[in-house]
Amino acid sequence: MKQVFNFSAGPAVLPRPVLEKVQKELLNYSGTGMSVMELSHRSGPFEEIIQGAETLLRELMDIPEEYEVLFLQGGASLQFSMIPMNLLGEHGVADYVVTGSWSKKAVKEAGKIGTIHQIKSPGDIPAYTKEDFSPEASYVHITSNNTIEGTRYTTYPETGGIPLVADMSSHILSEPIDVSSFGLIYAGAQKNLGPSGVTVAIVRKDLIGKAPETCPTMLKYETYVENGSMFNTPPTFAIYVLKLVLEWVKENGGVAGMEALNREKAGLLYSCIDESSLFSNPVPEASRSLMNIPFTTDSDEVNKLFLEQAKRRGFEFLKGHRSVGGMRASLYNAMPLEGVRALVDFMKEFEADQGGTSHVDH
Amino acid sequence: MKQVFNFSAGPAVLPRPVLEKVQKELLNYSGTGMSVMELSHRSGPFEEIIQGAETLLRELMDIPEEYEVLFLQGGASLQFSMIPMNLLGEHGVADYVVTGSWSKKAVKEAGKIGTIHQIKSPGDIPAYTKEDFSPEASYVHITSNNTIEGTRYTTYPETGGIPLVADMSSHILSEPIDVSSFGLIYAGAQKNLGPSGVTVAIVRKDLIGKAPETCPTMLKYETYVENGSMFNTPPTFAIYVLKLVLEWVKENGGVAGMEALNREKAGLLYSCIDESSLFSNPVPEASRSLMNIPFTTDSDEVNKLFLEQAKRRGFEFLKGHRSVGGMRASLYNAMPLEGVRALVDFMKEFEADQGGTSHVDH
Repeated sequence: MKQVFNFSAGPAVLPRPVLEKVQKELLNYSGTGMSVMELSHRSGPFEEIIQGAETLLRELMDIPEEYEVLFLQGGASLQFSMIPMNLLGEHGVADYVVTGSWSKKAVKEAGKIGTIHQIKSPGDIPAYTKEDFSPEASYVHITSNNTIEGTRYTTYPETGGIPLVADMSSHILSEPIDVSSFGLIYAGAQKNLGPSGVTVAIVRKDLIGKAPETCPTMLKYETYVENGSMFNTPPTFAIYVLKLVLEWVKENGGVAGMEALNREKAGLLYSCIDESSLFSNPVPEASRSLMNIPFTTDSDEVNKLFLEQAKRRGFEFLKGHRSVGGMRASLYNAMPLEGVRALVDFMKEFEADQGGTSHVDH
Repeated sequence: MKQVFNFSAGPAVLPRPVLEKVQKELLNYSGTGMSVMELSHRSGPFEEIIQGAETLLRELMDIPEEYEVLFLQGGASLQFSMIPMNLLGEHGVADYVVTGSWSKKAVKEAGKIGTIHQIKSPGDIPAYTKEDFSPEASYVHITSNNTIEGTRYTTYPETGGIPLVADMSSHILSEPIDVSSFGLIYAGAQKNLGPSGVTVAIVRKDLIGKAPETCPTMLKYETYVENGSMFNTPPTFAIYVLKLVLEWVKENGGVAGMEALNREKAGLLYSCIDESSLFSNPVPEASRSLMNIPFTTDSDEVNKLFLEQAKRRGFEFLKGHRSVGGMRASLYNAMPLEGVRALVDFMKEFEADQGGTSHVDH
């Protein structure tokens, strides 16, 4: 089997030891004689899995007692509706900082429920302070890492007490954050937490319980609080794999360990791009994502050639998002350092070849 | 490893060949060098999976062209809200036939959106005709198999043209049905279709597109139609396993093959219960479920003893739902005939032991 490095923006690469464990126990989970997929969610073995996942996430992110940890479905896209339904009340006001495509989608859904003030951020995400926000806002929403644009907040907004809500889908667990400075953090699992199909929300308890009576039961956070995220059948297999991923993070130095590795990986690739006369990245240095790194050449034709050759070498899913073109390398926690080294080597080799070709051709 | 037979009501037993295939290709799906969990949902291999799943379901259920097949999240419980949001319009009217706990939950959610007329069914589900329904109803909702009560419709309502909506979660693919007599069919996967985390909806095209503007994008059926069920990241792994289950159904005689096997399995267990002087089932014969068979003795103590001994013999998850007590055997498609034979043998043995004990004790 050829060595493949998977740079997909999500669903994305998973830690190899996690996949090996899933494979090993697929037919017989923990001596039950059944697959984990076949276990009733009301059974002891599954209760241990979901509670274990919560305990590990609390430990890894140092989540204070005043926060609930919920396992949901529907991805960040359903949270775009659940957040205003639960936090805004009817016809309330919220501020949304718009830093890219996903923020815009969040605004669109929230606008169906309340009055949304948009704060349009330049490419370089500034340090927002309370003067930037509406005093009447029920919350301030940010997309803390922008998967498509390749940007992230390096300083989180000071909201002056307004609850800060963050879509951390594409960089949760990639570097330490102070949970207590947020009102609500949410993330689809399929980038840094596990397979697609489960969404994590970390919600400050005082923000829960304000949804109107008419809100569907499945869209109220309190439904998940009151039922340990099992009002109905949860996505059991996805939660199981998520728990294994959290165990892997813990065994590999926790979130601090991930950050060190992520800085090394991103540093390697940004250096390669910055030193290159072929490749470029449009993001101001201060706002660069550690997870999603878009890059491009000046020529669509060269981009295409690069992507073709890269795929032949086993570098998968490097094509940039259709809205921006070019290339994008997503370097989530599970991407090994050797994958980035190999990519950088290949980029240098490709650039040398292109330079050589240019000399001959022109 | 001891032989285990899993009678869980869901998540439930999956076909062994499906699990073996999942295990075999878990680290390298179809020569990609990646796990199926790691594949971008926008990739060729995943597009093949989701399209293959739809094609197989259309073939197995003989779904006419005028119906869309959608893959959703949130289980039947989220459909309880999506259905009135999409089919009712604001303040519309719908009729709900109440045949058990799940019907009641459906009524509760629909009642937040429109005016719901409840038609309370006796334990024996009668053959409803159009006179039973409100002429102004936008749709008639039924729970076609009642997981907790162990009942099912053997004759579907004649609604006189009002779209019939059916929650088929606990018996989809268990026996042939005429899709064209329904407006909408939905089912959580975790009983007869695959693992938990994906929900199937089969919707007649003319019923789509009526949700109000304010409906969240993720809760409109047209979002799924317009984006091939991939407006956002779908639960890729659950859809993959669902496709393998559909392949297994096809290889095993299709839905007709499943029905023959299900009638044999259910027949064995009902005969055992009906011939027993220890065990009983409360359901009138005409409305008995082929999938979920509750049974009990007259004594909570004997039930407890039975469940303890059964578990030691490898019969898992036979405990009845907490709302009804006693025992329940769920005999979904993937439950092998030998599992039911073994259970029946054990029940007879247990009854003989109990009889013997009675003689000595009294």
